[in-house]
Amino acid sequence: MSELGRSHYCNEITEDMIGQEVRLKGWARTRRDLGQVIFIDLRDRSGIVQIVFNPEINEEALSIANDVRNEFVLDVIGKVVRRDEETINDKITTGKVEVQVEDITVLNKSKPTPFSMEESANVSEDVRLSNRFLDLRRPKMQEIFWLRHRITQEVRNFLNERSFMEAETPMLTKSTPEGARDYLVPSRVHEHEFYALPQSPQLFKQLFMVAGFERYYQIVRCFRDEDLRADRQPEFTQIDIEASFMDSDELFSMTEEMMARLLKMSHNLDISTPFPRMTYHEAMHRYGSDKPDTRFGMELVELSDIVVNSNFQVFTKALENNGIVKGLNAKGQGDAMSRKEIDDLADFAAIYGAKGLAWLKVDEERTLKGPIAKFLDDEEHENVIQAMDGESGDLLLFAADVQEVVFDVLGALRLKFGKELGLIEEEAFHFLWVTDFPLVEYDKDSGRHVSLHHPFTRPVAEDVEKLESEPEDVTAHAYDLVLNGYELGGGSQRIHEPELQMQMFRTLGFNEQEAKEQFGFLMDALSYGAPPHGGIALGMDRIVMLLAGVDNLREVIAFPKTASAGDLLTGAPSPVSQEQWKELHLSPRQQSGR
Amino acid sequence: MSELGRSHYCNEITEDMIGQEVRLKGWARTRRDLGQVIFIDLRDRSGIVQIVFNPEINEEALSIANDVRNEFVLDVIGKVVRRDEETINDKITTGKVEVQVEDITVLNKSKPTPFSMEESANVSEDVRLSNRFLDLRRPKMQEIFWLRHRITQEVRNFLNERSFMEAETPMLTKSTPEGARDYLVPSRVHEHEFYALPQSPQLFKQLFMVAGFERYYQIVRCFRDEDLRADRQPEFTQIDIEASFMDSDELFSMTEEMMARLLKMSHNLDISTPFPRMTYHEAMHRYGSDKPDTRFGMELVELSDIVVNSNFQVFTKALENNGIVKGLNAKGQGDAMSRKEIDDLADFAAIYGAKGLAWLKVDEERTLKGPIAKFLDDEEHENVIQAMDGESGDLLLFAADVQEVVFDVLGALRLKFGKELGLIEEEAFHFLWVTDFPLVEYDKDSGRHVSLHHPFTRPVAEDVEKLESEPEDVTAHAYDLVLNGYELGGGSQRIHEPELQMQMFRTLGFNEQEAKEQFGFLMDALSYGAPPHGGIALGMDRIVMLLAGVDNLREVIAFPKTASAGDLLTGAPSPVSQEQWKELHLSPRQQSGR
Repeated sequence: MSELGRSHYCNEITEDMIGQEVRLKGWARTRRDLGQVIFIDLRDRSGIVQIVFNPEINEEALSIANDVRNEFVLDVIGKVVRRDEETINDKITTGKVEVQVEDITVLNKSKPTPFSMEESANVSEDVRLSNRFLDLRRPKMQEIFWLRHRITQEVRNFLNERSFMEAETPMLTKSTPEGARDYLVPSRVHEHEFYALPQSPQLFKQLFMVAGFERYYQIVRCFRDEDLRADRQPEFTQIDIEASFMDSDELFSMTEEMMARLLKMSHNLDISTPFPRMTYHEAMHRYGSDKPDTRFGMELVELSDIVVNSNFQVFTKALENNGIVKGLNAKGQGDAMSRKEIDDLADFAAIYGAKGLAWLKVDEERTLKGPIAKFLDDEEHENVIQAMDGESGDLLLFAADVQEVVFDVLGALRLKFGKELGLIEEEAFHFLWVTDFPLVEYDKDSGRHVSLHHPFTRPVAEDVEKLESEPEDVTAHAYDLVLNGYELGGGSQRIHEPELQMQMFRTLGFNEQEAKEQFGFLMDALSYGAPPHGGIALGMDRIVMLLAGVDNLREVIAFPKTASAGDLLTGAPSPVSQEQWKELHLSPRQQSGR
Repeated sequence: MSELGRSHYCNEITEDMIGQEVRLKGWARTRRDLGQVIFIDLRDRSGIVQIVFNPEINEEALSIANDVRNEFVLDVIGKVVRRDEETINDKITTGKVEVQVEDITVLNKSKPTPFSMEESANVSEDVRLSNRFLDLRRPKMQEIFWLRHRITQEVRNFLNERSFMEAETPMLTKSTPEGARDYLVPSRVHEHEFYALPQSPQLFKQLFMVAGFERYYQIVRCFRDEDLRADRQPEFTQIDIEASFMDSDELFSMTEEMMARLLKMSHNLDISTPFPRMTYHEAMHRYGSDKPDTRFGMELVELSDIVVNSNFQVFTKALENNGIVKGLNAKGQGDAMSRKEIDDLADFAAIYGAKGLAWLKVDEERTLKGPIAKFLDDEEHENVIQAMDGESGDLLLFAADVQEVVFDVLGALRLKFGKELGLIEEEAFHFLWVTDFPLVEYDKDSGRHVSLHHPFTRPVAEDVEKLESEPEDVTAHAYDLVLNGYELGGGSQRIHEPELQMQMFRTLGFNEQEAKEQFGFLMDALSYGAPPHGGIALGMDRIVMLLAGVDNLREVIAFPKTASAGDLLTGAPSPVSQEQWKELHLSPRQQSGR
């Protein structure tokens, strides 16, 4: 046959075309041999159409079809005909017709595939990733990547409409001591020096603002050399946005509109805006998390005042040590769970730092039963039941410790119960802004204050004077966008005055010289008419994951890394030649030292 | 003033708005103090409008304006008024009006800038790059990056309309021995192993084809650790395209349409398609280059047959050693150039490998004069003049050597004369496809054959049998797109059969085990129904450079690297901490060895 291209995609073959000659190219999905006649489902990226080989049409084509196996690549010419009534398949758009093949070329063969192209059942992720070129051929995966494509275009269209400029920033950048661990790239030209792959284009987008670009965006790859979890990858894609002369309210409403457009596109869903807002303080106290899943209640209950005078030392000691006592009501679980199951909860809580897990059941008489019941007096019993809305059959769980531990433990228990008890409305999309983050926190390991977001985040005006004296009490102009318990991204208004930026570096323990060495170019930039500016960065992979309804980032990244940051397909990372080590002026470090 | 946003951009202030109150935010461009009244040109990214401070309106605002200097960031509220007739400025769209300021806030100050924001005259590139945040603020630079933005969107729209899927590929990939030098990224988790930053997503886009994506594109960052020139950067952006079931003709015509759309957009120019095509062989012989600038003629002339029996040993020795003799006619330069200038051409030619540069002048009697005239007999004189179209006053230059040297020397001389003699039509856009590249060439250093494009390039069908016996005679299904002497990009049809791919690796000197170690996953992929496929990659930076009419890639990259791959702004690359060396299991290599 000639080199000419296909005339149609498979799913374009309809009843209107009966009698027409078509040329199709695609993959053999299944072959059925019915005596003299062979049927093949031909699949291309559009869908499926049945092709049929009949000895009366072309004996040679039939004989070629006889050797075709699943996933062979075929080029066929034939005539569209109506299917016999009894073979009509209403499940596919081409189900009323088939193509009677007049000529066939096998463009390529296929070995039997290690798993079926039709479903993912019973295939381990390792096998899928090692054969990603086949895994991605499955229609379900193609749907995910088409969704990703559409989301990507929609985001760009949205921002283009608002006159944002898409601009590129470098990947070979400078390593800075703040934040997560950098991936480093040794320099051949500059001996024993390194580039860093960007954790985000933060400084460059701020420089764009200094340059007067005013509105910038980029859908950009970022890198973090951190230990991985299901919702982390060493390289990830970020919708990176920065704007001058735009306050947080404007940025919030723009971001909300963008998310609404995406949900309209992917789910034909009208989500209501504006999104609710909650301060960091409130989120931690009510949900034990700065990215609460607000699709269900089961909030944490403050009990410190109620139990402050109790005889239960676990409670009172915690309070004496500046801690808090909070509780969680697992509705109905007092009846439902065995003693063993309740004890197992303590092991779960221990993962999050709990030294134990106190609990009480509410019995039929609405009184509290359990190991610690005896330490509380009647009034305390009543107050606890009231505060926690306790009803017969409920299981009340308590955490008493420093704030952070109480939040972590009860926050994790809340999510566990939410999932296991089916409290979560799976189809819902609950967006939430978490605002008013602290600017810095004290890091015990380094004995210094470190930024919660990054050192360029703006403190709120009324707290600036506390930067030196009480830095932990300073609130930042920072915000996170949360969806269904996932942090979609975050941002802030930035510091645009060189003096305030220097003050911030001092708060973080830099002396003037260190600050200049690391960030001299930024302070320079701020001193030449930097406009007020701020922005946000949203995780593209997470957005796709949540809109695709899958629960793992590896499902929405074409060639993802495993938990040990390896690529099962190509074998990266890998050893390199002596010559390459030499050109980079590097030696392997020996265990015994440098 | 309140936190509310601007009401208009500067260039939106027109006569229609006279009497209206507006709020503007932007940069003070110039301040003129006319006695009691102060005029400031306010600039934002849209353009400029004049604002005026009058003591009768607001004394305090006037006093603030008095302290404003160039590049201060201002927030002003005022009323649009008509300018006095004599102050109308027809050069700007807002030239008939001005804004009478009622209230002003200085949002940020600026030190005096190291160079003016208005023009680039007399600013060294080092100063510009060290202060890139100011350099980019200049309207001319903003225009370039808006053009880049529009090109980027137009390319995506074009490909989206043709149902290409935009898909992302990894940046942390596997180092392979083929091609240019990789940038490497040491792994913390996998001791003494490295990732490589991609030189292109070549293998991944082929895997997308195996996965049945059929049409893929990505505007993607790529990396090469090579020594830099004006038209090379260590990181560059590529329009990466791959398609299944699409032959070269279809790909050519699609690419032509895309380039035509870009020129229509940027220059409102209708370029004619299809673009001319020329084989590699023809391009080398006619222009001494595989990326000829076809905006001017001055082609190389083949003289081997004419001088084969001459008495000039430089010619005859070259021909005996399998070389060639070619000439170049520098019209009118025999008269125009001094003996010294002609001798200097030999030094120039030496850069490109010439051992000398023979030359002759055509004098008024149409006879040849010059040092080598005596070695040629009358017939040879006449034949040379005829072949080279020699006229009185011309300078004829000759190169005799192995083919490669002759091409390089005369190709370089041709370009030099083309520029210096003003032969090049600067405003023209001459596209050209160069086709039929050799598949491999012999590399003396390694004693092996190496790919001209890459090892996945398809040989033409009729040459496959020569892969083992005469690999240098095999033509590849490969093509480059050339514009005005710049290689915009290139591509090929790929090998889709595992056996042919293995054959190709053998031709390149791999044994079976080496091929499997490096490219096992590719051969695996090809054995599961890989479709025929091919693609192209176009240099985005070069396209923007040529459409913006600038002559350096650094003008179209926001934060470019210098010739030594450094970033003058941030100081990357830079030393990193002992802790970072340790985590990556690396030591600095000592001069004395490993």
